[in-house]
Amino acid sequence: MSRPKVLVSNPTVPQIAFDLLGRYCEIIKIENETIEEILSKVKGVDAIFWASHLRLDKDIIDAAGSRMKTVGTMSAGYNHIDVEEIRKRGIHLGNTPEVLNNAVADVAVLLTLAASRRLHEGRLAIENNQWTPHCQWMLGQDIVGSTVGVIGLGGIGQAIVRRLKGFEVKQFLYTGHREKEEGKELGAKFVSLDTLTRESDFIIVACPLTPETEGMCNADFFSKMKKTAVFVNISRGQVVDQNALVKALKEGQIFAAGLDVMTPEPLSPTDELLKLPNVG
Amino acid sequence: MSRPKVLVSNPTVPQIAFDLLGRYCEIIKIENETIEEILSKVKGVDAIFWASHLRLDKDIIDAAGSRMKTVGTMSAGYNHIDVEEIRKRGIHLGNTPEVLNNAVADVAVLLTLAASRRLHEGRLAIENNQWTPHCQWMLGQDIVGSTVGVIGLGGIGQAIVRRLKGFEVKQFLYTGHREKEEGKELGAKFVSLDTLTRESDFIIVACPLTPETEGMCNADFFSKMKKTAVFVNISRGQVVDQNALVKALKEGQIFAAGLDVMTPEPLSPTDELLKLPNVG
Repeated sequence: MSRPKVLVSNPTVPQIAFDLLGRYCEIIKIENETIEEILSKVKGVDAIFWASHLRLDKDIIDAAGSRMKTVGTMSAGYNHIDVEEIRKRGIHLGNTPEVLNNAVADVAVLLTLAASRRLHEGRLAIENNQWTPHCQWMLGQDIVGSTVGVIGLGGIGQAIVRRLKGFEVKQFLYTGHREKEEGKELGAKFVSLDTLTRESDFIIVACPLTPETEGMCNADFFSKMKKTAVFVNISRGQVVDQNALVKALKEGQIFAAGLDVMTPEPLSPTDELLKLPNVG
Repeated sequence: MSRPKVLVSNPTVPQIAFDLLGRYCEIIKIENETIEEILSKVKGVDAIFWASHLRLDKDIIDAAGSRMKTVGTMSAGYNHIDVEEIRKRGIHLGNTPEVLNNAVADVAVLLTLAASRRLHEGRLAIENNQWTPHCQWMLGQDIVGSTVGVIGLGGIGQAIVRRLKGFEVKQFLYTGHREKEEGKELGAKFVSLDTLTRESDFIIVACPLTPETEGMCNADFFSKMKKTAVFVNISRGQVVDQNALVKALKEGQIFAAGLDVMTPEPLSPTDELLKLPNVG
């Protein structure tokens, strides 16, 4: 019996994955991670191991042909995969939720602290010889006693709240489709997006990118935030209207932002976001 | 009865402090925070409100004269004050312990995360157009499952451990003069400095600067650390032999460092520390 053929969309997948797959499957390796190369090699495979930010769409599924029965994506999110098309054809789709929950939650806390304590601005001041011995120099926003709002209390959102428990936060709020048992266990209060936006000192976006959340953090959203509030996004760049965010940061509508994701990725080195001292 | 005279060593002390003091005392304000100006104005004061990194030494105490009975420093540390001289003359010394514990502990966690997740290096890569879509790009060091060693389990050290409790750390170690009740309550294990240095994945310095701790983190110390370990200092710059630290960071003897304090302060914008990608 011949071994199933699996296309791996990215050459930089950890070697251990190639080793494990290689025991049972024939691997079709993509060298340059372009749609063209993928289209040229995908015909007749049994499965696709997707480890790309590229979009896995109908063209690729068509090119693979009817043998293709399984897609695995090396990510928790699957907004880059045409799920509708996959479902229609009865193809199985696997993702990797939870694997990165802790790492992403660590980064969320990192960005929350960096933005509130003005880490980047402080470094710029040292580099530009502007460190002054002022008693109140570079004061930031305290997390102690603050209200933290988490948009999306999934695995990552919960891991963020667990981490911030030790920081003497006054109150955790969250929003999403529905109230959750885990929210009660964590002592977090379910509120509307509007309430969360108005009342939070720190807003952390931890929801998936869906048609519903795309562009959710727009000019109206930022206008409702407190002037002293910090905005953190560790979900997907497209949840944010980035021009509106830049405007809010420039005009002092909000205090600072910490971004693990942006639009586009990679971000251009000349992007305005990189010029703002209050973006970490 | 005339109001007591208080010299305030720094014009940038928060206004509320001037207001409160002004109700009961005559304030002698220092405008430029130089030793010369302080020496010229200190004669005959009843008390000194010290809010400077400058050294409050015998010259100033002599210049103040015998009416001076109280010194208050707006800091937890008093390594910049000639305590011996003050004690000899029966002058009262007040400091502000605990006030900044939470803020400093926040910064300690911030720097721990920033160094482990390569925040500065990642930003440099974006600025230099080197963001590559590599699956394993910019992997850092996980806090989950790690051993965290805290040097000095005072108020700040304890606040740091309380914060890191939510990060699924495997084990907390600490060192200091003696085992502490608070250590037991926090589930942290008392060990020698040597053991802490060898076994920790993250080392956080949170002890006061004393003759005993000055230069404690030297070439020998860094040579004992794991190559994958992260070094964080939120105490005083002089606890570290900074040349030895730079060498350890350059040669890959340790993974990264997060520094809230350095030598000297302000740091020169051309200091080598600022050129290292693995310093946050």
